[in-house]
Amino acid sequence: MFEWLKKRRASATVPVVRPRSEGIPRGTRVDLADMSPDPVAYLGQVAYFELAVFESLTRAINSAPDLAAKEGLTAAAGEVLAKHQGVVAELRALDVDPAVAMQPFAPAIDQFEKLTHGRDWYEMLLGVYLTAGFLDDFFIRLLAGLPSDMGKRLEVLLEPDRSAEVIVAELRAGIQADEKLSSRLALWGRRLVGDTQLVARSALHVSGNRATDEERIEPVFTDLIAAHTRRMDGLGLTA
Amino acid sequence: MFEWLKKRRASATVPVVRPRSEGIPRGTRVDLADMSPDPVAYLGQVAYFELAVFESLTRAINSAPDLAAKEGLTAAAGEVLAKHQGVVAELRALDVDPAVAMQPFAPAIDQFEKLTHGRDWYEMLLGVYLTAGFLDDFFIRLLAGLPSDMGKRLEVLLEPDRSAEVIVAELRAGIQADEKLSSRLALWGRRLVGDTQLVARSALHVSGNRATDEERIEPVFTDLIAAHTRRMDGLGLTA
Repeated sequence: MFEWLKKRRASATVPVVRPRSEGIPRGTRVDLADMSPDPVAYLGQVAYFELAVFESLTRAINSAPDLAAKEGLTAAAGEVLAKHQGVVAELRALDVDPAVAMQPFAPAIDQFEKLTHGRDWYEMLLGVYLTAGFLDDFFIRLLAGLPSDMGKRLEVLLEPDRSAEVIVAELRAGIQADEKLSSRLALWGRRLVGDTQLVARSALHVSGNRATDEERIEPVFTDLIAAHTRRMDGLGLTA
Repeated sequence: MFEWLKKRRASATVPVVRPRSEGIPRGTRVDLADMSPDPVAYLGQVAYFELAVFESLTRAINSAPDLAAKEGLTAAAGEVLAKHQGVVAELRALDVDPAVAMQPFAPAIDQFEKLTHGRDWYEMLLGVYLTAGFLDDFFIRLLAGLPSDMGKRLEVLLEPDRSAEVIVAELRAGIQADEKLSSRLALWGRRLVGDTQLVARSALHVSGNRATDEERIEPVFTDLIAAHTRRMDGLGLTA
């Protein structure tokens, strides 16, 4: 078993970070139900984000250093594609054209992808792992504001880190073989978290009262950053 | 319904080209059972080929002209990825490392992908549609030489053209809008068939008696080229 998986299990004594797969009831974790956008906007943004993650992974597949890595990453790409397709199915069920629903979110997410693209294969992988981990987790916090059935389906669908094992294994192997890579990736991981938070914030339907909004948002982001730090720790990187 | 689908249905009076979905019993179609490679070589080549098709499709997704086309192609990519993963699962069931089984076929298929890559988005799509259609169909002809259970599972998995509707729709729209594109794609389609046949031939376990081999191979290739011609016709292209 990977070290980071052990860490995730160990952290299960702190309720708020317990993996969803262990079945904590909805609502015991800090969520942002009252700041959720309307369902079509939510689904459009998540669908486009998962599509962007899928495209990033396909670039990593195209430039994989060997066939075993390539083969491993196709499994991760399949999982992300399933997330995208699941969200698209929700849009179709509402009789909404997925392309129309996604379009408003394309420019910001494309820009985000450019910023988090990385300079080589390892930075690309770390970018996908950290940003998708953070944002899947974030999007789950907004589910409580959606119609309950849809929310339940999406909670299963968006389970973060589900497909990350192979990415983590590649990163750990690279980091263990090259100390310079380790410090470069630590820096890269710290840089990513700022841009990732901006994408998350852009999805929130805020009241306009800055102080009240920050009071609601702050504990959630504290959680999300703690999870980010655990991902970095799990790779042996200083967050 | 698309015209090409109608054509496929209409052609069902000629037994040998009847779509497999209409359930003709195995063996009534001309196959190459006695020329099948051993199962691991077969699975390795098919797995790598489907991976290459998937990668070509992801390049087409990356460079899609609009979000609706991009979204449509992700469904096709998902189907091809499922083919790859299904074949990989067969290798794992035999306790064979998929990367090791695929490796011997990587250079020739990579070279093939380069030759059939195309100069723009439409040539890329036509290349995927025609070469994957031809080779999926070809690989199915070899199934009769594999263990029977495995052959049955793979026959369902490799059903050709299953994911091609969206590709065909994009190609037809492009061709109808631009007469020059039509003649360029017709030329491209005719060029592709030669290289595609070479890949198919390389998969055959031949006896070494040239005359006997050709006698066995020729009727199968006549079938496969007839199916290729129907795909071209369905797009309004002269084969």
